[in-house]
Amino acid sequence: MKKASPPRRASIVSIGNELLSGQTVSTNAAYLGERLFAISIPIVSSYTIGDEIDSTVRALKLASSDADIIIATGGLGPTDDDLTRQGLAKFLGVELQLHNELLDKIQNMFARRERPMPERNKIQAYIPAGAKAIDNKLGTAPGIMAESNGKLFFVLPGVPSEMKQMFEESVLPELQRFAGSQAIIIRKLKCFGTGESNIAEMLGDLMQRNRNPLINCTVEHGVITLCIVAAAKDKNQAEKMAEKDEKLLRNILGDLIYGVDEQTLAEVVGEKLARQNKKIATAESCTGGTLAKLLTDIPGASRYFTYGWITYSNDAKISQLDIPRDLINKYGAVSEQVAQAMAQQARKKADTDIAIGITGIAGPDGGSEQKPVGLVYISVDTGSGCETRRFIFHHNRDSIRLRAAQTALNMLRLRL
Amino acid sequence: MKKASPPRRASIVSIGNELLSGQTVSTNAAYLGERLFAISIPIVSSYTIGDEIDSTVRALKLASSDADIIIATGGLGPTDDDLTRQGLAKFLGVELQLHNELLDKIQNMFARRERPMPERNKIQAYIPAGAKAIDNKLGTAPGIMAESNGKLFFVLPGVPSEMKQMFEESVLPELQRFAGSQAIIIRKLKCFGTGESNIAEMLGDLMQRNRNPLINCTVEHGVITLCIVAAAKDKNQAEKMAEKDEKLLRNILGDLIYGVDEQTLAEVVGEKLARQNKKIATAESCTGGTLAKLLTDIPGASRYFTYGWITYSNDAKISQLDIPRDLINKYGAVSEQVAQAMAQQARKKADTDIAIGITGIAGPDGGSEQKPVGLVYISVDTGSGCETRRFIFHHNRDSIRLRAAQTALNMLRLRL
Repeated sequence: MKKASPPRRASIVSIGNELLSGQTVSTNAAYLGERLFAISIPIVSSYTIGDEIDSTVRALKLASSDADIIIATGGLGPTDDDLTRQGLAKFLGVELQLHNELLDKIQNMFARRERPMPERNKIQAYIPAGAKAIDNKLGTAPGIMAESNGKLFFVLPGVPSEMKQMFEESVLPELQRFAGSQAIIIRKLKCFGTGESNIAEMLGDLMQRNRNPLINCTVEHGVITLCIVAAAKDKNQAEKMAEKDEKLLRNILGDLIYGVDEQTLAEVVGEKLARQNKKIATAESCTGGTLAKLLTDIPGASRYFTYGWITYSNDAKISQLDIPRDLINKYGAVSEQVAQAMAQQARKKADTDIAIGITGIAGPDGGSEQKPVGLVYISVDTGSGCETRRFIFHHNRDSIRLRAAQTALNMLRLRL
Repeated sequence: MKKASPPRRASIVSIGNELLSGQTVSTNAAYLGERLFAISIPIVSSYTIGDEIDSTVRALKLASSDADIIIATGGLGPTDDDLTRQGLAKFLGVELQLHNELLDKIQNMFARRERPMPERNKIQAYIPAGAKAIDNKLGTAPGIMAESNGKLFFVLPGVPSEMKQMFEESVLPELQRFAGSQAIIIRKLKCFGTGESNIAEMLGDLMQRNRNPLINCTVEHGVITLCIVAAAKDKNQAEKMAEKDEKLLRNILGDLIYGVDEQTLAEVVGEKLARQNKKIATAESCTGGTLAKLLTDIPGASRYFTYGWITYSNDAKISQLDIPRDLINKYGAVSEQVAQAMAQQARKKADTDIAIGITGIAGPDGGSEQKPVGLVYISVDTGSGCETRRFIFHHNRDSIRLRAAQTALNMLRLRL
């Protein structure tokens, strides 16, 4: 294969009835997307089809009209509904050929498991004429690599563990030779504290589609990810462009940016607590342990997290945190006063530097005109002062609870 | 639209650069696949493309050559990289039109959140001429429904919660009118307490692929879902077949089955607690609030959940639960004795009918030869006796914590 100069592009074909009927969520395409993106081969399209020879032929045609590298997964098993190798052979216009060395391997694999090879596994030793087998260390089905009209085709099993092992060991080294003349660098900035459209407003023209670096924006549970994709002739230049944009975004967004790449709020807060050698306690009502769970999701959380209370009932608030019953009667359990008392009492009882109190109405029931579902008070007591804020969160119970816990972490982050 | 006699088929178009570059695993296509399958409309193809007008037009063309029902998701946001409505208009050969009633709705949504509407959100009030808006109760972007050449097009947001709500409320009722001549009934049985291969062994021939009803098995975080798919000429007959199989499976699997459909362990345990009018408290160490969070994920959990302690440090165990320091020194914080003391003390302190204590090593550090990462002791005190069990959970920190909390719920379920 000649070293072509235009940038390489890839297309994915995922094959399997179970993918269409929703019995399986395919993670293979996302995995391949991320791995290929990292070597500057963007995926431009992805097709999911059922286990049929003609669908396979059609999808391979479409994929090869989009891209020079086509990776198909699934349909290499031994059962009658696995028809990908037949589909590939038909697409290439060649016959399937039995490879005795592959048959030996498959028989040996069964022998090691002390089982006879079922007759139907023999099909896995067939490869389209002119194509090559790709070794499968974890299962019986070898993969297939073929070249046609200057395009490269890889067919891998659908089982994620086998697919990944074979991709990393056999496909990736092959592709790295073709990693285009274009270098792509990706930087992710994680933001919290405002909405997607607000961020877009702040960034203005920077988010234009024809810009390089391209800035993409995705949002999940209130965390906004800005993805800077810089393309240049060489890696160095792409890195410089991405760096320049990162600075630009940091100038505009300031402390809305809490981290980079895959960092979570809990991770960033945990790092700050550990670095500053501070301990934290939590007192939760409506979030019912969500905040403590997020904090302790992080390995090594015991360096800073010591105590947590889930005072779900009024009695628990009174008996465990000594919140005065009068305070609850006067202002209600969901109030600024009770949130603040929860934080202050937790800090005192746990003898920590910091404590967070959360009280609110997660719903779906329990709301009123004055105190609607979604109303949450969050109080952060850092010893040098107690900040208590009122929020109205939306959507549903899960979302209200998660946003409340994340917002508490964000309030704390801004004070550390 | 006329009531056509041939069975309807659907095709999915998923739109978003983040889907191709692997930054997001799309669960929307699988969700739609399952829901459509349930009303006998098979998905025959699924296309994933980037945020580009021309790619959208091409994918809509391909999808409508495969199927009569086309559902596209993603690209309806307010930012410049959201181009699906423009793509649909181009495909249909019409202009986008501003709908003032949609603009009012969007402005009202911002007003309720006490924020001004950013100018760029205005684009979300535009709909291709001749198409209809689909109401979005959870976000600002309305969906779009259009008809062209006897084919139905639905465009929904990519955010899963919004997509699902709109699909269930607006798209599904529309599609049910076209459900094919074959009736399919799906029953799901949820199991916990043994492995997938063990269940497959127990079921034997029942899991054969050519059987009707077909029995599928999927596993996620230890929860095994058996899906009975019965196909028959009419709904009545399919229902009878599914019912018969459900009885068969219940006979074989007994109390490994904890629930049906989308029920969680926490939901089933919560229902039992509420029905028996029993209250529960939790004392968690390694799970750091995961168990309390699972219990309080359920609306109305305050009927049975009152107190939770997260005694992450030894000091917290001693000061909050009065665990004797000697007991910790003698057996270690991760021991049968301490787990049992945590459950017993929590029950006493919270004055509840039941309490659960969990202590273990979630890792990745902190393990030893005698007490490896994944070792967890769970104790359930129901007043009529305290059951404490030792487990070794696997994989990683997240998985160990979640499996421990789920296993605690399962131990409790079997005693209620």
